[in-house]
Order: sequence, then structure tokens, then C-alpha cells
Amino acid sequence: MIAGIIGATGYSGAELVRLLSGHPKIEKLALSSVSYEGEQIEGIYPNFLGRVSGTLLKAEDVIASADVVFGALPHAVGEPFAAACIEQGKHYIDLSADFRFDDDENTYSAWYGKPYQFPQAHECSVYGLPELFKQRIKDLAESGAVVIGNQGCFPTSALLGAFPALANGLVCAESPLIVNAVTGVSGGGREPSRSFHYPECADSVAPYKVASHRHTPEIAHYFAVMADLSDNPAPPLIFTPHLAPLNRGILSTIYIPLIPALHITPADAVMPPSKEIEAQAIKFREFYTNFYRHEPFVRILPAGLTAATNRVRQSNYCDISVHLDLNGSTLIVISAIDNMVKGAAGQAVQNMNILFDFDEKTGLEAIPALF
Amino acid sequence: MIAGIIGATGYSGAELVRLLSGHPKIEKLALSSVSYEGEQIEGIYPNFLGRVSGTLLKAEDVIASADVVFGALPHAVGEPFAAACIEQGKHYIDLSADFRFDDDENTYSAWYGKPYQFPQAHECSVYGLPELFKQRIKDLAESGAVVIGNQGCFPTSALLGAFPALANGLVCAESPLIVNAVTGVSGGGREPSRSFHYPECADSVAPYKVASHRHTPEIAHYFAVMADLSDNPAPPLIFTPHLAPLNRGILSTIYIPLIPALHITPADAVMPPSKEIEAQAIKFREFYTNFYRHEPFVRILPAGLTAATNRVRQSNYCDISVHLDLNGSTLIVISAIDNMVKGAAGQAVQNMNILFDFDEKTGLEAIPALF
Amino acid sequence: MIAGIIGATGYSGAELVRLLSGHPKIEKLALSSVSYEGEQIEGIYPNFLGRVSGTLLKAEDVIASADVVFGALPHAVGEPFAAACIEQGKHYIDLSADFRFDDDENTYSAWYGKPYQFPQAHECSVYGLPELFKQRIKDLAESGAVVIGNQGCFPTSALLGAFPALANGLVCAESPLIVNAVTGVSGGGREPSRSFHYPECADSVAPYKVASHRHTPEIAHYFAVMADLSDNPAPPLIFTPHLAPLNRGILSTIYIPLIPALHITPADAVMPPSKEIEAQAIKFREFYTNFYRHEPFVRILPAGLTAATNRVRQSNYCDISVHLDLNGSTLIVISAIDNMVKGAAGQAVQNMNILFDFDEKTGLEAIPALF
Amino acid sequence: MIAGIIGATGYSGAELVRLLSGHPKIEKLALSSVSYEGEQIEGIYPNFLGRVSGTLLKAEDVIASADVVFGALPHAVGEPFAAACIEQGKHYIDLSADFRFDDDENTYSAWYGKPYQFPQAHECSVYGLPELFKQRIKDLAESGAVVIGNQGCFPTSALLGAFPALANGLVCAESPLIVNAVTGVSGGGREPSRSFHYPECADSVAPYKVASHRHTPEIAHYFAVMADLSDNPAPPLIFTPHLAPLNRGILSTIYIPLIPALHITPADAVMPPSKEIEAQAIKFREFYTNFYRHEPFVRILPAGLTAATNRVRQSNYCDISVHLDLNGSTLIVISAIDNMVKGAAGQAVQNMNILFDFDEKTGLEAIPALF
Repeated sequence: MIAGIIGATGYSGAELVRLLSGHPKIEKLALSSVSYEGEQIEGIYPNFLGRVSGTLLKAEDVIASADVVFGALPHAVGEPFAAACIEQGKHYIDLSADFRFDDDENTYSAWYGKPYQFPQAHECSVYGLPELFKQRIKDLAESGAVVIGNQGCFPTSALLGAFPALANGLVCAESPLIVNAVTGVSGGGREPSRSFHYPECADSVAPYKVASHRHTPEIAHYFAVMADLSDNPAPPLIFTPHLAPLNRGILSTIYIPLIPALHITPADAVMPPSKEIEAQAIKFREFYTNFYRHEPFVRILPAGLTAATNRVRQSNYCDISVHLDLNGSTLIVISAIDNMVKGAAGQAVQNMNILFDFDEKTGLEAIPALF
Repeated sequence: MIAGIIGATGYSGAELVRLLSGHPKIEKLALSSVSYEGEQIEGIYPNFLGRVSGTLLKAEDVIASADVVFGALPHAVGEPFAAACIEQGKHYIDLSADFRFDDDENTYSAWYGKPYQFPQAHECSVYGLPELFKQRIKDLAESGAVVIGNQGCFPTSALLGAFPALANGLVCAESPLIVNAVTGVSGGGREPSRSFHYPECADSVAPYKVASHRHTPEIAHYFAVMADLSDNPAPPLIFTPHLAPLNRGILSTIYIPLIPALHITPADAVMPPSKEIEAQAIKFREFYTNFYRHEPFVRILPAGLTAATNRVRQSNYCDISVHLDLNGSTLIVISAIDNMVKGAAGQAVQNMNILFDFDEKTGLEAIPALF
Repeated sequence: MIAGIIGATGYSGAELVRLLSGHPKIEKLALSSVSYEGEQIEGIYPNFLGRVSGTLLKAEDVIASADVVFGALPHAVGEPFAAACIEQGKHYIDLSADFRFDDDENTYSAWYGKPYQFPQAHECSVYGLPELFKQRIKDLAESGAVVIGNQGCFPTSALLGAFPALANGLVCAESPLIVNAVTGVSGGGREPSRSFHYPECADSVAPYKVASHRHTPEIAHYFAVMADLSDNPAPPLIFTPHLAPLNRGILSTIYIPLIPALHITPADAVMPPSKEIEAQAIKFREFYTNFYRHEPFVRILPAGLTAATNRVRQSNYCDISVHLDLNGSTLIVISAIDNMVKGAAGQAVQNMNILFDFDEKTGLEAIPALF
Repeated sequence: MIAGIIGATGYSGAELVRLLSGHPKIEKLALSSVSYEGEQIEGIYPNFLGRVSGTLLKAEDVIASADVVFGALPHAVGEPFAAACIEQGKHYIDLSADFRFDDDENTYSAWYGKPYQFPQAHECSVYGLPELFKQRIKDLAESGAVVIGNQGCFPTSALLGAFPALANGLVCAESPLIVNAVTGVSGGGREPSRSFHYPECADSVAPYKVASHRHTPEIAHYFAVMADLSDNPAPPLIFTPHLAPLNRGILSTIYIPLIPALHITPADAVMPPSKEIEAQAIKFREFYTNFYRHEPFVRILPAGLTAATNRVRQSNYCDISVHLDLNGSTLIVISAIDNMVKGAAGQAVQNMNILFDFDEKTGLEAIPALF
């Protein structure tokens, strides 16, 4: 099977190249790049020397020759390629935001500055978070070519962290649900800029786009979808991304307000955690563990461990630790992913595996190293 | 004037050595260390070569010879030195947690594992957050020797970030106030351990002591003191510290629930920020700017800037940026300090300046470099 | 086939666990640890959760159950295990220095502080640098159980960088050959210490053990072996290791004095490189490329590229770039490896592959990511 | 006194702003920037908020109003400003390469691509390495306006490391003198580029411009000047710069071939250092200590310490450690500076102090912190 990657020289594209080159079902890659057309991929990424080679083509030629196409492009330029793929009966897995809002064009155009260009391509699209929509992806694939709107990196970590609570009616919709997230610098992509210039981001940490990041509506939308599974409304969302000096990784610290029925009232909220709090925390952890028991890439950590980005580096895992606050009424869920794997290229490969009915883990079995 | 430092070879102690060596009112330092008694300070910290020298003495000899004494010791060992200072009529500035709880011995002993040993030393003690207690420190100093309970690093950033809102009745006490904080690794001190071993914390970010950190009761206590200034209760506190790969710095992202009277109801909470939201954010920023207008070390950032740790590195500044969430009902305040300066040694020097009626900025005028 | 790892909880041991868990010929691991006997490996390394599990045993039990045994122990404690393996007819691959000096016990004991304890184990041992001794390893394996003295991390990068020049008589023995090397911090192992404490090694670079590092005699010994292949003496060696704030990687900058017959005399040594210099550099690069043409893990970089550690991270590659100095008489060779893979565990697996006549690349095919 | 800075918004310019703002002899700054003319400096560098302010002017206006002018510009654009200063009788301190070659226009134009534009400005210029040319700077200043060609960052560390040996005839001119240097990323300046993009340089180390860096002729030229002080020729120079993930700092590892009269012949070159080697090393260290005894910014480290960049961070110190190789014939000198201070802006301020006969240390007394 031939996999095509449009936009193979950006960071997500290169990560797809790396993962798909080791995927046992993929015999060949077809790669495109506007900036480097005609050059060799290993000339742009010498880490591939001796392992991956291939001339960078035009997008059209990639689509024509591939059995499945990945779009690793900036937002708002990939729709024509999606439409072309659908026309040719080929699945298209889009890593931009263009297919993440589906039937909510208004929200998309308010944040991304343009309306849908090829509405028909949105008719066969689905949001590519496998833990939420695995069945829908499979079903769609049975009836023809599918466009996958591969989720954003922050949304993956936020959505997986809150999913069990939202889908089971544990969340109080009156208080905001806060997602405080930290990302590594690779999330900013390959283009140099002052924000990602080494001396200006090394040895420092800072939030950015506070109360105005474009992943907010995406997270909020799927929080609502999740809450709706138990006929509940979702709480308001507050999302604050931070930049920290890591190459890879997203860590989300998620503050989930519990419904009153689940509150533990501590004798004194500023005393060390009581036995009741600890016992209740164990129950929530067990609930999360059970909820994800069939998901190969979600690991609920045992008591005593807190999720950290280094334990999932270069893997497709989402590690989650579950804690109960001293006040007994807020669940604190920490989720950690590799933003380039589970947050982008790895998830895209996982979606491809589902589309083609391969074992979901195929090509994604790297064991994370600690350092 | 001679300044004494008990525990001069830990990180806070060494930072005091550095700052006090450049302080124009300090002619000489007297330094102690249990581990390195008899050795030279510049043998332990060769960065001081040619600039600071001195044999490490016994704590008793430091107290005897100094005009003011700093205790840079682990928790729960410094009380005898404080008591000795008071007996000899000398101010004692304690950088541990031992004098941060004053009249709340129960909370202290619940978290630090022992009762007060020298209750009399707590009678003339005051919490050393100058922006809150400057006048009380001055007043106490007039009537004799004072023990300063120099605040913790996380509490400084949390307290300064929430102070204007709490002290003026802007905060809704029904919802939790969340302090999500990130610290650099120097906060862990000089003793090597697995958590701070380079390969295990570089290139990674992780929370720790979730819902169980000992700075929680300290922050909660002074939040209550602040709220009480306008006769309001303080909201429940949720505090989550994270470790990130920085040498220095604490960044707190503080989610402050506003009282209903201050809410802006957005037309649609997942749309980009409305003009109303932006206008209200400006008002909050102006309010913060005005609140701190006489404080030499608090900088409220202009619109468009978000607080970051690199802009305060090696300085005594606390940078604060003020934002209003898309939902119009949560103030998001970001505060950044250098954990070793404003979060420890610099604040201690600031407290000394106040005690001795020096200009508060004396010896603390380093201009931060960006990198 | 069952692989045993004695000392599985140190960094080299854990890296062996990671690599061997993905090795298609290894069905099972048997792991030992003195410090954590009876515990689970994934409790010590939670990055392995869901992928690797197993109780940590006694070394004796590992040897008894395994088909091949790896020793990932500190220096000077592994000889008894090697001897036991040989007795039981099992190959033993030792990652310490104990079997790197073979017939040169004097040098070993001068640097490591003890004589050989089990001389018989040294009779069937061979230095585990496959590019140099692949045939000898194969030959030895045919006649019985073998002890591999897996080379050190610095030696690998130094030896591979100088091998083509030394083995072909290009090197002037009158001038010193200088190996200036930089290592990442994981090379210091898992035990916390001040040198590897984050705040003391982050954002800094420094040499250590200048003119006194224990890898010096190991490099010098095999330089002599290499030079002897063309009946030449080796030049004196100067070796200077540096510590830099990286997790992984060794970069060696190797200054090789050329024999006079190969000198290009520049018109003016401080002018930019002349055409003659550039032409000669191309010849050396081609010579290196040809020399290593059958080696699957050595990549000679094309003109315009300089070796860097990030392009080999988590892979078994040794990247080499070849340059000619402006003065026309010194070859500058840069070699980059991942110290934990090609410099330790990966090389050990490569040696195992050779011993068992598997394809040399088995289990070592990870494609390096750039970041 | 008013100091002018042309090019105040680059990294060297901003570092001059920081240092001169704390300089007791400077009452006011006049700043220029082509890119940001009319804007406020604290808008570009918010770390200066509340401490430095000022509108960015045209270069001409800076020259007109200042008593001394610093040029912090790219290479090959500053000569007209130097000429204008000389005409107006004002000292000009140039941080580019334009005045580092003085009477060697050929070398300059070969490496920097253009001839001198204002030859007259070169007649009153001097290379700004105070430890070498302090007297010449003073003498020139007595007879009128002076142009200082402030040295490069790599050259400072290389020249100070080799100066005592070269100036006293200890160096064998037959073998190359090798300077293997590592720089932090701030050396690349403020403009974002792929080389300094965080994900591509973090967690990695690599040489660059091997055998072709423009600092080579500058170092070689002043090595010759130094050697000439004892009527000796200088050896050929090999210079290899490396980039490492640090914000600040340059570390040079300098391999100095000794004249035969100074060789110690070791019994066995691969044995641990002999007593003779150690005794001789002490003599060289003492010689270096004595040589620099009057220099306030050069610290020769005592035995047991090796120079490291973190101990000089944000200071004007050059730390040097002196070692003798195991082979007894090569002196290994390690020198560490902060590339932005002693390697650029701090040295420029030191030169200003000399020009105006201020105490050389004025405004440069920051005590380095370890982290």
C-alpha cells in the first residue's frame, strides 16, 4: 500500500514520514512539498539518511499515486486536496483544523478566518479522535472514502482527560472546567520565529494566547459531544496554553468540578488529605481505568504516580493520572502525550489503521524511553 | 553592618551571599554551615572566587557577630536560632516555613510534623510578604527584635497575583480559586535526588504533590487575610505545582472566579473575545496597575504582554499580566517571579531593608536580562 | 530465546530492556537487580507500563534461565557472572569496562583499581566494536561461549571516527591525535549526584577529568590495534570529555594529523578554504564513505553537512562528517552517536545479533527523529 | 555622561543597554534602531519595563547627543558611524568585526566580502582586548578620539587562554594550536533562523563552519601578535566552533603544543597522571596565575577545578583552568566567558572605562550566580 503525504517537510509531515516508514502495511511513500519540490526528503531531514529517500513531488501526483493521503498542511489550504481524494475514492487524513468542526462552519470561520470552500468534503468527514469516534470512523469507511479531521494536539490531551467524567455525568455544569496545558516547542512547527528562537524560550515558561487560543472552541465542542452521551450539558471551558522548554510533549492539568452528589466534605480544607479523600480518589482512578480498559493507547497510572511528558516521549500513549483535590469537590486529571505522535502524526496513523481495519496498534508500538 | 547567614551553603543561602555581597549597607558577612564548617565559601561555590571569601563558622558565632541574621535552613530546625537572636535583640529573617503560620500552630504542625518549639519567638514574628505587611514589619521593628517568616516561593507568586482582587471584594467565594504553578528546578534545593537528576527532569514537565503540597495552607491562610481586608470570605483554594526544565522561575496561572456583579455575559462563549470582554479586561488591568502603583517590585504588564519567567530572571520583580476569560466571569492572572530572588533571598533582603528603614530597593536593583 | 539482563534498573540496563523488548528474536526477558529485587521493572520505570513487566530476580536466576546474558553493572563487579555464563556455555555481553582490556591487565588494573578476578573468562573475550572485530566475534562464537567486552561510549565515537585513517596509514604518528568529546548527561548513569543535578549542569558546558579520564587507555589501545592493520604506529592520544546539557548523545571532534605526503600547502593559512583544500576534503570524504560501505550503522555525511547528536538520537547510527582544516595538514572528523544506543545498549544488541548470526540490524531499526 | 548605542535592539545592543543603565558614570542613554525607529526600547525588551525607557532614534541623532558611542551592528555597516564619531571627536566602540583587522585589510576583505570604506577611521583604531592592549588604548585616547575594534566572542576566550604561553615563548610553532570552542545560542543574535530554532538546537550539540569560521583569522592574527612579544612565531591555528544548548557562554578547550624543553616524558602515556606530570601542571598554573595577577577579570582556577560556563554567567569574568596532558607535552587550557558580557558588551564597557580612565571594573561588578 502506498501512503501519500502532502506537506511532508513540516514537522507533522516529517513525523508522518518517520512513522509510516516503519509501518509494516506501507510499502512506499509518495511525498509532496511546495517549498522543496524536486528535492530529496533526506536532503531536508538528514536524520533520514540511509532510511527514507524520495523526491518531493506535486500534491496532485501524490494523490494520484497513493492509496491513502495525509494532509500535513497549514490551516485553510487543504480542502481542495480533501475534495480531490474523495472524488478519487481515497481516504484523506487531514492534520489541520479544516475538518475538525464538521457541521459547525460558523465557529470554524470565526476562528480561522474563512468559510468552508468545499462543503461536500465535509459531508463524509469525521473528527479523528479514535477513543471517541472509532465506531463512526469504521462505519463511514464502509460506505466510501472518508475525510478524517485529525484532532489538535491540545484537544487530544484535554478530551482524553475529561472524557470518562463527562460521558458519565460526573461533571457539574455550573462551574468552569479548566484545562491548563503546557506544550513543548515543536508544537510551533518548523518555521523559525522569535517565539521559538532558542534564547527567547529556553529556561523560561509562559502562557500565550490566554483566553483566545483557537483550540478552545474545538475542545468545547467535543466536551459537549461527550457530555451529551449521558444527556448532560457541558460546563463552560477555560483553556490556557503555556510554552515550556521541551522539544516534545503536552501536559494538561484538568480541573473538573464534580456534581454535588460526589463531593466529599473535608473537615478542614487546608489539612493534609484525609482518608476519605484518598479512598474517593482511588474510586475515581478505578473508574477511569475501567472506562479505558479496551483502549490500547491510554494508560491510567496507578496511585502514587503523576503523569509526565517524558514517559510518553516518541510514543502514541496518553498517560493519565487521577487525583481528588483537598476540597473534595474537584477532580484533578493530568494527561500527558507526545504532541507530535498522539497529538498529531501517531493519531493520524491510528486513524488510518482503523479506516483500513488493521490492528489499531500497527506501526505505533515504540516503547517510550525515559530520557 | 554585618549580616549573618545560617546555612550559607544551600541554594537560598548562597543566593543571600550573592545579594548581600553587593548590598551597599552590608560591610561584612558572617556565614555558617554544618556540613562545611571550617571550609571557605568560595571553595563550595567557585563562582564567588575573587569576590566573596570567608570561613564557614558555627551558627552561634554567626549570631554573636552579626547585626542581622538570616536563617536559610531546612524546615523545623531554625527556631532555636530565632529565639537566640530575639534574646540578643537582633532581627532574624527565616527562609524556612517555621514562622509562616504564626498564630496557627495546628496547621503548621499538621503539615510540617512538629509543634512550635520556642513559642515566644512566634510572638514577635510577622509574615514577610512586604506588599501585604510592610507597615506591620516597620511597626514591629520599632518595638524590638523581629522574626520575619519569609514567605514561600509559590505563595509569593500566588499571593501577589490574587491580592488586588481579594482585598477589594472582587472574588466569588463559592467557586474555587485555582493556582496552577510551574517552578524551575533550583526550587528543589542543592541536594541531589532522582527528581532533580538532569536526565529525569530535562525536556519534560510534570505536576507533583497534586492536592497535597505544603504551600497550600500557607497560600490559603493569607488569601483569607487578604479577603478579610474587605470583610469577605476567601474562596476554597486549589493549588497544583509543576516542575519544568528551567533553572529559575515560578509562573503562576491564577483562575479567579469573579462575583456575579462583575460578569460580562458573552453572546457565545466559544467565539473569539468580544469588544466587551476586551474593554473589561482593560479595566481590570488598570485596577491592578493602580493597586500596586507604590510597590517598587511589582510590574503590571501592558495589554498584549503575558508574564514570563525569563523577563524577571535574577531580579526581585514580580511581573503580573491580567486577562479576562472568554466566558466573562473568570479573571486569569499570570504572575512570574525568580523563585530564588523575589521567591526567597531577594524578598529576605527586601524585608531587611524595611526592618532597617533602608530604601526598599537597596541592593536589589539588578536589571533582568532577557536570556 | 530468553535474554537475561543483570543490573536491569540502571540506565544501560533499562535501555537494554527497551531495545530487547522490541527485538523479534527475543521472546522473554529475565531481569535482575540488587537494589530492587522482588519489585516489578515497570514500577521502577513507569515508561514501560503496559509494555514490559517482570519481577526483578537474583543474578543467578537470570543466568540459569537465559540463553544469552547482558551485564549492565558498574565496573569491577561483573566478572563472576561472566565466569558463570562461560561455565554454563552461554554468551555474556558485558557493558562495563571489565572486558575491554583483554590481554592488558596492567592498564586495566591501573585505571580501575583491581586485577582480573577470573582470568579464564578473559580467554574467550573480545572487544565488542563490531566494525573492527565482527569477524573475530563470529569466529569465537563458533568455538563456544564468548564474553563480549562491549566498548565504552566515548571510545565508540572516537574509534569509528579515526578507524579509516588509522587503518590505512594516513596518520602522522609524530603529532598527537586529539579527541575532543562532548557527552549528554545520561552518560553519568541513574544515581543522582551534584555533577548531574539539574541546576548545576543545565545551561552550562564544561570539560571534566581533563587528562585523566579512564576511557583514554581504552581508546589508545584500539587506536594502536587499528594503526597496526597497516603496520603503522599510532600517534599519542589526547582525550578531553565535556559535559553538555543534553539527555543523550556523544559528539567527538577528532583532530587527525596527516602524514606529510597528504598535506596540501595553502597559500595563506588564514584565508578562506581554497579550491585545493575543498577538493582534497572531498577525496577524504569519499575514502571514508567507501571504507564503511558495508557497515549498516555508520553514515558518512555528504558535503555541506556536519555531524550532530540530534540526528542520531535513539538510533544505533554513528554519523560521521569529514573535513580538512585550512592548514591542509589536519583531518577533522566529527562523529556523533547516541551514547545509550550505539554507545552502550544498541551496540550490545548488535553484538548479540552477530554472536547468534542474526541480521546485524535486527531490533535496531528505529529511524531517528530530528527532535 | 551620555552613552549612545547604535543598533540597540540586537542582543549585543540590548546587553549594552542593560550594563550601561547600571553604570554609575552614565547618566543617560541615547539609542538607535533602524528596524524600530520611533518605538520605545522597553516595548521591544519588556524585561526593561520600569527601569530603562527611551525612544529609538536615528543613528545620527545618537551620535550628535552622546559623549561616547557604541556600535552594535552587523558586520560591514558601521564604518560611516565610526568616521562620523572621529570627526566629532568622540570615541567609537565597535562590536562588529569591522575594526578588528586594522592594518590587515586583505584578510578582512577576504572573509567579510568588502574593502575598508573609511580608511581614515582605521588609523586611530585599536583592537579592544584590554588584557593585551590596555596601554595602547590609554595612549591613543590621550591624543584624540579612538575607534575600538571590540574583539569577537570566540577570540576573547581563545586569546586569553593562550596569551601567557604565547607571550613567553612556551609554545612550539611546529605543531598546530587547536582551539575547540563551544558557544551558547545567544551568540547567533536576535534574528530567528532554523539553526537557532528551539527544536533544532535543544538537546543537541554540533560543530559548525568547521575549518571555515570567520573568527579564525582574527584569532590567528592576535596569536601572532602575542607570540611576537617574545620574538617567537605563532603555531598554525585550528579553530572549531560548536553550538550547544545554552543561552550564554563560550567554553574554549585549547590544546597548546609546548616547546621540547618543557616536555615531561611519561613512563607510559596511557597510565594515570604521574607525580611529575602533576607537579609540572602546578607550575604552569602558577605561571598563569602570576601572569594575570593584575587583571581584574581573569580568574585562574585553583587545582581541582575546571572552567565551566555557569560560574561566569552574566559576569565579565574569564575563568581559566590549566592542565597538562598525560603525554607531558601539551598544555590544555580551558577558558570560560559569558559570550554576551566578556565576549561582547561587558568588554565594550571595560574598554570605555579604560578610554575614560574610570576604574576598569566600574559597572561590571556583578557577582555570577551558579544557576
